[in-house]
Amino acid sequence: MSAYPHRHLLGIERLEPDEITSILDTAQGLREILDRPIKKVPALRGKTVVNLFYEPSTRTRASFEVAEKVLSADSLSIAAAASSVQKGETLLDTAKNLEAMNPDMIVIRHSAAGAPHFLARHCRAAIVNAGDGAHEHPTQALLDALTLRQRKGRIEGLRVAIVGDVLHSRVARSNVWLLSKLGARPVLCAPPTLVPPGIEALAPVTHRIDEAVEGADAVMMLRIQRERMTGGYYPSDREYHVRFGLTEERVKRAKRDVLILHPGPMNRGVEIASEVADGPYSVILDQVTNGVAVRMAVLLLLLGGTGEPS
Amino acid sequence: MSAYPHRHLLGIERLEPDEITSILDTAQGLREILDRPIKKVPALRGKTVVNLFYEPSTRTRASFEVAEKVLSADSLSIAAAASSVQKGETLLDTAKNLEAMNPDMIVIRHSAAGAPHFLARHCRAAIVNAGDGAHEHPTQALLDALTLRQRKGRIEGLRVAIVGDVLHSRVARSNVWLLSKLGARPVLCAPPTLVPPGIEALAPVTHRIDEAVEGADAVMMLRIQRERMTGGYYPSDREYHVRFGLTEERVKRAKRDVLILHPGPMNRGVEIASEVADGPYSVILDQVTNGVAVRMAVLLLLLGGTGEPS
Amino acid sequence: MSAYPHRHLLGIERLEPDEITSILDTAQGLREILDRPIKKVPALRGKTVVNLFYEPSTRTRASFEVAEKVLSADSLSIAAAASSVQKGETLLDTAKNLEAMNPDMIVIRHSAAGAPHFLARHCRAAIVNAGDGAHEHPTQALLDALTLRQRKGRIEGLRVAIVGDVLHSRVARSNVWLLSKLGARPVLCAPPTLVPPGIEALAPVTHRIDEAVEGADAVMMLRIQRERMTGGYYPSDREYHVRFGLTEERVKRAKRDVLILHPGPMNRGVEIASEVADGPYSVILDQVTNGVAVRMAVLLLLLGGTGEPS
Repeated sequence: MSAYPHRHLLGIERLEPDEITSILDTAQGLREILDRPIKKVPALRGKTVVNLFYEPSTRTRASFEVAEKVLSADSLSIAAAASSVQKGETLLDTAKNLEAMNPDMIVIRHSAAGAPHFLARHCRAAIVNAGDGAHEHPTQALLDALTLRQRKGRIEGLRVAIVGDVLHSRVARSNVWLLSKLGARPVLCAPPTLVPPGIEALAPVTHRIDEAVEGADAVMMLRIQRERMTGGYYPSDREYHVRFGLTEERVKRAKRDVLILHPGPMNRGVEIASEVADGPYSVILDQVTNGVAVRMAVLLLLLGGTGEPS
Repeated sequence: MSAYPHRHLLGIERLEPDEITSILDTAQGLREILDRPIKKVPALRGKTVVNLFYEPSTRTRASFEVAEKVLSADSLSIAAAASSVQKGETLLDTAKNLEAMNPDMIVIRHSAAGAPHFLARHCRAAIVNAGDGAHEHPTQALLDALTLRQRKGRIEGLRVAIVGDVLHSRVARSNVWLLSKLGARPVLCAPPTLVPPGIEALAPVTHRIDEAVEGADAVMMLRIQRERMTGGYYPSDREYHVRFGLTEERVKRAKRDVLILHPGPMNRGVEIASEVADGPYSVILDQVTNGVAVRMAVLLLLLGGTGEPS
Repeated sequence: MSAYPHRHLLGIERLEPDEITSILDTAQGLREILDRPIKKVPALRGKTVVNLFYEPSTRTRASFEVAEKVLSADSLSIAAAASSVQKGETLLDTAKNLEAMNPDMIVIRHSAAGAPHFLARHCRAAIVNAGDGAHEHPTQALLDALTLRQRKGRIEGLRVAIVGDVLHSRVARSNVWLLSKLGARPVLCAPPTLVPPGIEALAPVTHRIDEAVEGADAVMMLRIQRERMTGGYYPSDREYHVRFGLTEERVKRAKRDVLILHPGPMNRGVEIASEVADGPYSVILDQVTNGVAVRMAVLLLLLGGTGEPS
């Protein structure tokens, strides 16, 4: 296991390429534990992790919880929407109070960009960003990269189309940084209304999905976050599908061994056709399994696990 | 411990009598663990169970969770109402995603009849039906049967009145199948508005509670599910109690050693009088304890426990 | 470890001084476990605790859960608002049903004063009051006392101002009893609209914060429970802060080594100025850590732990 010299995992933007590779290597090594009949190692026994979720989440929270249980950590999950927050408490007070119970790590999801960084400046516990606003979602980018690397043997040189609601997507941002750092060539594709200003400095942007998919080694579809939209971004689900949905027809433009990724939850028939989601190029469920492995790696690297969980 | 040859527990309807007996025997053997000072055996250490509840539930979810903890399984509970489902994800996608985290079992409660069967066709994990619409609730019927057998020494030949809201009751359906398979004689009793069409093919139906209770070895009261009713099924709670409530007076019509069961939560003063619920014939709390034992048995039988948890 | 002869912890009012001291001594002895790298002892392995919360709570619930995990108990948390309660079940039926699953302890928070006492009369499990209406919150008073004793070396003779919404505060009531029993001199301070009738029989009451703070060894601020207020108790948050908020200016009236306590969550700028909350006299985060230690002590004393968790 190589070194990861930071106390926190706040985002991909500030990481060095070899630090990213270090996490991926660790995750790859831990991956096989999930296929054992007894999926449990004592590596983090007696460590406590608080999962502090200010936004609803099934899969990310479940993935962290499974990773924590596999490594024998104790975990405490707080759905902050239903708690002290309603009683007028600040984020920092909530975090400081949880920290005073001496957890070793706080995993936080928050609607405000920068919330995990703020906690990292004020708390002693290791902080992991499980999604902050439209900013970063580093473990998602890491699991996407792990999936690409397993299937392609490398990240470097891959042409990766990232298609959809880039404006609201922390997944897109973390992936652009990660892919660029490891030498891949990400291309962004979104309707003009869903492109954040300045993003073209990070990766080329197109509004035509056919152009983005052309010759791609991988296509990462983004979820249309209908619950964040008050209307006006695009005419209708049907319209969106026609212009930006990934269909079997469009997949044919990509390389013959293209990989299709989606962070979930999917809107079938909107950003992705069911035939593609369930088709031969889809690695969507691999992503989920790799998600647990990546979170196990992050837990171990930050909490000083031995790296030999055996 | 006898054999249970299936990978799932989806309902009672398709089980053979000796398979039911097998589960009951296993549960009976495990029952004493719950009376120990240290209620914990390592039988399922390193196994992971996802409790996926699409409908609110305290007692069934708590019962499964306790059973999982007693057997040292890791459990992950998802209140699906507050999760990805709201983000437009299909049931199958949610299940496949959870499954990609490699749990050994998914316990599901869902408002749609057939949801567990659907998952069983598409998932590798063992599926346990914790209630699907108005269809089946097999662990409830099993715990009812375990309670009857403990007190009466047998199921065969017992006359069992099942009284109340049969229309909305998965408990009634599972119980009719189970009792019939094991040679008991169930009788259904409900107001005409609360009888599902065709049910008389499974068991005799009466609209008069006095007739149903007459000479009964056991009376199973069903909960009036007020939260599912939009009105019109019966005039008022008071009226319902007068015509279909189990009162001390009515209990006298049953056998002298009658057993009173209720799956809970009870509406005291509606379907059951408080004096009856708390009276000498009530085995309602036995049902709860047996519920944990039955769920332990199902966990062990499906997850390949040794059957010798010691 | 000294003796605690009761089966439950329902409140401070009926405890003997040496029983209180016994809990504090036990908590003090357990406190260091929380600073270990491996925060886990097997003292309560195989014991099951149900956390039954009828009111939302982050910190108290989290504190109990952490205490349970550190001691290796299994815990089951029920947010009762979202459960059977909505289906019309009585508190006692819910509790009896949970108890039939054979937990060793039920920790209950309820909006009705006396709810834990009611359960204690009808259940076999050990009952711990985690807050009942505006009545008692004994573990909060114990953690406050532990914090005072650590810093001052004693409770006896301390002058303690308790300031704020006394009317709605179970914390105030438990603290007045505890402090009086251990020989401290509590003084209550609240606006006239927020003083419960008869409270002056327990401790002197003033409506002037400057008078309450004058010469105090400790000031315990109470949270303005805006969510319980339908208006009319005080004109505005700003007005409240001017007349009853703890400011740096007011802290100067207290002893030079005064301690500032707050049970949280804080309304900064309302009952307490941020400079005071984060200032040199604040022991607010010590309170949180001590909260876990006190709950560990209660768990051990009631569940027959050996007191030698090693």
